[in-house]
Amino acid sequence: MQNSAPSPAPAPHKFVLTFVCEDQPGIVHAVTGALLEAGGNIVESRQFESFDSHRFYMRVVIATEASQDEVTAALAPAIQRFSLDWAIDVVGRPVRTLILASKTTHCINDLLYQRDNSHLPIEVPLILANHDTVGKLAAFYDVPFEHRPIASPEDKAAFEQRVREVVEEQDIELVVLARYMQVLSPELVEFLNGRCINIHHSFLPGFKGANPYRQAYARGVKQIGATAHFVTTDLDEGPIIEQQVIRVDHTRSPQELMSIGQDTEARALRQAVAWYAQSRVLLDGTRTIIFR
Amino acid sequence: MQNSAPSPAPAPHKFVLTFVCEDQPGIVHAVTGALLEAGGNIVESRQFESFDSHRFYMRVVIATEASQDEVTAALAPAIQRFSLDWAIDVVGRPVRTLILASKTTHCINDLLYQRDNSHLPIEVPLILANHDTVGKLAAFYDVPFEHRPIASPEDKAAFEQRVREVVEEQDIELVVLARYMQVLSPELVEFLNGRCINIHHSFLPGFKGANPYRQAYARGVKQIGATAHFVTTDLDEGPIIEQQVIRVDHTRSPQELMSIGQDTEARALRQAVAWYAQSRVLLDGTRTIIFR
Amino acid sequence: MQNSAPSPAPAPHKFVLTFVCEDQPGIVHAVTGALLEAGGNIVESRQFESFDSHRFYMRVVIATEASQDEVTAALAPAIQRFSLDWAIDVVGRPVRTLILASKTTHCINDLLYQRDNSHLPIEVPLILANHDTVGKLAAFYDVPFEHRPIASPEDKAAFEQRVREVVEEQDIELVVLARYMQVLSPELVEFLNGRCINIHHSFLPGFKGANPYRQAYARGVKQIGATAHFVTTDLDEGPIIEQQVIRVDHTRSPQELMSIGQDTEARALRQAVAWYAQSRVLLDGTRTIIFR
Amino acid sequence: MQNSAPSPAPAPHKFVLTFVCEDQPGIVHAVTGALLEAGGNIVESRQFESFDSHRFYMRVVIATEASQDEVTAALAPAIQRFSLDWAIDVVGRPVRTLILASKTTHCINDLLYQRDNSHLPIEVPLILANHDTVGKLAAFYDVPFEHRPIASPEDKAAFEQRVREVVEEQDIELVVLARYMQVLSPELVEFLNGRCINIHHSFLPGFKGANPYRQAYARGVKQIGATAHFVTTDLDEGPIIEQQVIRVDHTRSPQELMSIGQDTEARALRQAVAWYAQSRVLLDGTRTIIFR
Repeated sequence: MQNSAPSPAPAPHKFVLTFVCEDQPGIVHAVTGALLEAGGNIVESRQFESFDSHRFYMRVVIATEASQDEVTAALAPAIQRFSLDWAIDVVGRPVRTLILASKTTHCINDLLYQRDNSHLPIEVPLILANHDTVGKLAAFYDVPFEHRPIASPEDKAAFEQRVREVVEEQDIELVVLARYMQVLSPELVEFLNGRCINIHHSFLPGFKGANPYRQAYARGVKQIGATAHFVTTDLDEGPIIEQQVIRVDHTRSPQELMSIGQDTEARALRQAVAWYAQSRVLLDGTRTIIFR
Repeated sequence: MQNSAPSPAPAPHKFVLTFVCEDQPGIVHAVTGALLEAGGNIVESRQFESFDSHRFYMRVVIATEASQDEVTAALAPAIQRFSLDWAIDVVGRPVRTLILASKTTHCINDLLYQRDNSHLPIEVPLILANHDTVGKLAAFYDVPFEHRPIASPEDKAAFEQRVREVVEEQDIELVVLARYMQVLSPELVEFLNGRCINIHHSFLPGFKGANPYRQAYARGVKQIGATAHFVTTDLDEGPIIEQQVIRVDHTRSPQELMSIGQDTEARALRQAVAWYAQSRVLLDGTRTIIFR
Repeated sequence: MQNSAPSPAPAPHKFVLTFVCEDQPGIVHAVTGALLEAGGNIVESRQFESFDSHRFYMRVVIATEASQDEVTAALAPAIQRFSLDWAIDVVGRPVRTLILASKTTHCINDLLYQRDNSHLPIEVPLILANHDTVGKLAAFYDVPFEHRPIASPEDKAAFEQRVREVVEEQDIELVVLARYMQVLSPELVEFLNGRCINIHHSFLPGFKGANPYRQAYARGVKQIGATAHFVTTDLDEGPIIEQQVIRVDHTRSPQELMSIGQDTEARALRQAVAWYAQSRVLLDGTRTIIFR
Repeated sequence: MQNSAPSPAPAPHKFVLTFVCEDQPGIVHAVTGALLEAGGNIVESRQFESFDSHRFYMRVVIATEASQDEVTAALAPAIQRFSLDWAIDVVGRPVRTLILASKTTHCINDLLYQRDNSHLPIEVPLILANHDTVGKLAAFYDVPFEHRPIASPEDKAAFEQRVREVVEEQDIELVVLARYMQVLSPELVEFLNGRCINIHHSFLPGFKGANPYRQAYARGVKQIGATAHFVTTDLDEGPIIEQQVIRVDHTRSPQELMSIGQDTEARALRQAVAWYAQSRVLLDGTRTIIFR
């Protein structure tokens, strides 16, 4: 990297490889052999065997002068032999992210601020919302914004159709529900399976139904929090990616609890998106494996 | 303390006064006037008006050379005028506490260790358990221990009858369910109303039913916790006194989650008991006011 | 409350009174008597006696139909009798705040976002900075922005002179150093005594000097944090208002530690400013009393 | 597992292998090849390359029917080729731990309670203390206790000589300073290098010198904590293993801060010992790598 001469050696790329497969002996040996063959040096790596599913999870970061295609070619035999469900990516590449929103801006403000300050490797080709309140913020951050009101089932179907179009036309890899207050249709949930993250207020103990902050107030909870999770058809019950909590007391009004809760929502969602964008989130049935 | 004479003035006592009443003007003025009349100097004080119940809550600590009877006498007019629901106590007096237990010892170990090291102002005339595993620990801490197995409804009724007897004969002020795994009968709950604290595992989001640690594992929660609350007939739904949480991840087995959860259980219960013993816990309907 | 008619009852105002004085009997009685005389009903109140300084601190919120002048007049005898160091304010009135900045925007972004969403009762007549990077953000939030580079001692003196002018001409009540990286002159510190809040990275254990995040990395700390404090001539040693911490591990680079640290900085500063704006912060020598 | 009979399939052992070496390509491939050769299936694994030291760290848990000797033999070529600094152990084997103490019991109470409830894989052949207060607790937990007062430099030298003897005669793997208030001699520090853990109160910002809780009180800190670290000749500046913090406020006396601090001390020390006993702690110069 730091030498003289006619043709400077190219700086090594960094790639992140993740995969899942049935657990069996020899996986790590075979995969690291392939990476070695591609000139890869392991920078960081982590493995985990799930005792529930007997599946094996691995995330490995390598530095190499080989191209992504060359690395993939080297991996081909291991992929076939162990039936790996795999992905490879350039470390740090921004993930193409579609944000869906309604009225509140706290989550989007946090995501875009972090993106702009290089703490969050995402690029956002569009924010799509059923209210127009997010528009000004989107403009400030130079993110395209589209407002599609939802006043009828037809509006909602059209909104969802637009989501599908954007995902396909814009090569969207991740859809973030940044306090988008509509329930997704089962079809859209299915379409976005494993690539759609939602944020949900959560408390100790859990409150469901409308106005959870008022319930939390009535019960006098001492900790409030938020859960970022994958969207599944089981409403708000998808695999959990991140949870954040904060202490409160009886002096807080329902309004203040909501304000404090929004802060935990923004931080939990940001963290979940960051881990996803860094290929740190793998699915193990109803659980997530987070290789942080 | 600061005066003449052969016979040294007695050191001033410290009393803690707590009360609840309908909110109206003049309460604090009248009460502090009475305390002033009794030679009391305010050391620490806190008030709160609940917007839900329009009730007014106060906790005040005074230093005075007057006796408890003299202070009470001075308060009598205010008590009558504002219909105060009140209590007065000597600061630091150990609260007479009956502990009920089953098999596990983690909560009791914590409570008794803290008591012995002067961090928890309780005295424990008896530990009553339906298993014998706590006996050795009780002996180490010189606490009387009684083992009454529960194998039938009759056993349970006898156990509960024994609780009532002990409460009455031993002037028990607080009953702590330190992982006592039997559901109290509605009659006993009623009898112990407002003076019985339980500890409950709790998670984000909340899991109910059997084996919550396994549920939490299956869902892949990232925070586990515990809730200390007053016992009501609404099982595990009583007013919350304290909650503690701790971060976990996918590498933890259900067994490890339980071990970590026990730690939060012990700490949340200890804190709730400490606040109760310091007259810091007041009831506001389904909520608690904690004047910490 | 909001209606027509011959003589509508005026909506009650809410005032917050704070004071400090030498501890002695009768203070609360006298003050609450005066508030009662002014038709005040106590909504929330808290007192504290410092055992170090033997001084007595009180914060009380009342609802009354009287004006601020009437309340103050009623308090006059108590103020004189107990030599109260006092202040009274309308609850919720935005505090006039001057923000000083350098290059980074994370603290300002947080403060202005919270202000706009009604979670932070401040108004900001000016952001004054020695770099121009904050300008775009200020414009987005419609806050006047002034850029005054500091390249020499004369520049710095001029900058500080400008601070004094703004404070006086704009009735500034609070100066927030939102990562303003210049050391204030002793004269300016003196001028701003008790009304200037700074934010400081802090760690367990504490690191001083340049590049603390690198030091923290080298030492392998497991918690990083931030301290919001009043500015005194004792650099970064002023009375602490708020501290926030977050867990980290060996996989974090110094750059990532900085990013995480900035998050705790923004949150600790926001909390300190909020408490100050709500008249919840009182000084007790080198300590703060926070009536949250 | 432990019987004769026709031909029962032996239950697989679990081994944990940890090592450090210069970073270079091929390490993981070679090591996992050797483990595969020994019939090992990877259960859990983690690697890390330190950018500071260019050293590579690995911890891997395997299940195999081979013996420890067979695994070690299979690893021999890789150990030699990459000059691994390595260790292998049976998963869950209790680590032989010598505890040194002075007067306070909070750390020891926690360690022994956790040991007895299977949450902490240590065995404790001896507690050696320069005061006798720990004796009763040691007896309750059936741990041999030795009291050697230190009133002179000669006493201290004899105490340290006894430590060396015990370490050697009892095959001690870890020495825990559970609030042992004597400074170890440089010779003893050297002798125990990398296998001696201390617990230190720590605050935000850090206070050094005598009576830190009083300093913390005077400064009005809002978070107190504790740091568990390896002992080095740089007093209280050794590589950090774990830190815990807890929120406090102005109402806490120095005595209460100390009580709260003791709780964080006990928990941080317990966690550090647990990670050490599970072979999760590796040294990277002045930092630790914690593979939790």
